[in-house]
Amino acid sequence: MPNFKLLIAFDGTDFSGWQKQLNAPTVQGELERVLGQITNRPITLHGAGRTDAGVHALGMIASFKIDSSIVLHKLLRSANSLLPSAIRILDIRLAPPEFHARYSTVSKSYIYKIETGRIQTPINRLYAVHIPQKLAINTIQKCLKILVGTHDFASFEASGSRDKSITTGRGSVRTLYQAEIQHTGTDQLQFVFSGDGFLRHMVRNIVGTVLEAGKGRKTEEDFKKILEARDRSVASATAPAHGLFLTTVHYTE
Amino acid sequence: MPNFKLLIAFDGTDFSGWQKQLNAPTVQGELERVLGQITNRPITLHGAGRTDAGVHALGMIASFKIDSSIVLHKLLRSANSLLPSAIRILDIRLAPPEFHARYSTVSKSYIYKIETGRIQTPINRLYAVHIPQKLAINTIQKCLKILVGTHDFASFEASGSRDKSITTGRGSVRTLYQAEIQHTGTDQLQFVFSGDGFLRHMVRNIVGTVLEAGKGRKTEEDFKKILEARDRSVASATAPAHGLFLTTVHYTE
Repeated sequence: MPNFKLLIAFDGTDFSGWQKQLNAPTVQGELERVLGQITNRPITLHGAGRTDAGVHALGMIASFKIDSSIVLHKLLRSANSLLPSAIRILDIRLAPPEFHARYSTVSKSYIYKIETGRIQTPINRLYAVHIPQKLAINTIQKCLKILVGTHDFASFEASGSRDKSITTGRGSVRTLYQAEIQHTGTDQLQFVFSGDGFLRHMVRNIVGTVLEAGKGRKTEEDFKKILEARDRSVASATAPAHGLFLTTVHYTE
Repeated sequence: MPNFKLLIAFDGTDFSGWQKQLNAPTVQGELERVLGQITNRPITLHGAGRTDAGVHALGMIASFKIDSSIVLHKLLRSANSLLPSAIRILDIRLAPPEFHARYSTVSKSYIYKIETGRIQTPINRLYAVHIPQKLAINTIQKCLKILVGTHDFASFEASGSRDKSITTGRGSVRTLYQAEIQHTGTDQLQFVFSGDGFLRHMVRNIVGTVLEAGKGRKTEEDFKKILEARDRSVASATAPAHGLFLTTVHYTE
């Protein structure tokens, strides 16, 4: 049975996240509906991971198997003509039978955008979080450096959440390959994270906490202790969803 | 009576343009409502120019006079807290009594954004027009060069429109200082126009016509003849509003 691998981008503003829900518009729900309509078969789409309501994606990966000999470029074109313009399939390929968008994932990358001017630019308001103050970038960089490597990220995991991590036996231990902050323009900054996996709300909780350090309310030492505490209650509030973008999902060839 | 000069940015997506209308949300309407609410006086705001429904602004200028000693930074903060997030006053200053946002204008600049990849990136869909094909940039540049200088732009003026231009006696003659196309990223292009004034739909009609040349459907010679014809019916269709941004309005000091 052919195994299809999809590269997907979406504007998460008007969706209740990736995962299908009965009474709310979701990205998975829209894609399954449209792919089912085209192929005339029920579709179960496996995403590389869930995204929260309001989170965007530039390069989500999803896969599905279907007993159909549909031509790839026709499927791509039909799907995009039926999908809402906030969701686009950028590419469809055939993958080996053992490929699974979620279980085959080797690493993922995210960016988180903030705007630091006194007043937020209206056209950025859905795609960057407004922090109207000068941030101590040096302190932020030092905190982010602490995160790189293999750590127990329990302090940055959404409380009460734990799904796959239990079955994989690694608990809340993850490895971050990259954790940086970059200037992208006047008053425009972005965090970049890559790692072998991310706990629920992990990026947003890290950003929320590291921004407290950037505002001078926490030191690098405080940040280190928060990571070491492995306790969600010591970290800061979850940063808003709309600054977050899933950028890339990596697989071994 | 103090004369206030406002620098304004807005996302035009959800507005029926700049100019106040009775039964539709407009940028001028929202600003007058909010400024009137704060100052407790009826406000008549003069914009540097009108923008069509769906057009955005990064640096619109508007002015109003009011007999009030309101503190500038308080007015700015209050207005932004009451305005919809799609409109932001970026700055408020006192201007000389003779300053008028419309009549004192010396020149204006616009950009027009297009995306040329096969599939449009969802988060760009409200801020760039999708032209899914490779464009002949060289031809476009040659056409744009023809426009720089003082010309009668009647071929690019919305049919049936003519307001201030009659009274100023210059008809549809305008001077363009800049007309360029620039690469801003992978599959991302922007047109840049500055001039001493723009006729209604002028930028969008120029873009619509020059894109025909970029697609190989018109030559540089054809384009020259269109400009020289001074006849709207020979130019191409008006390009969509959502690619257009008013970027700057210039005044003499």
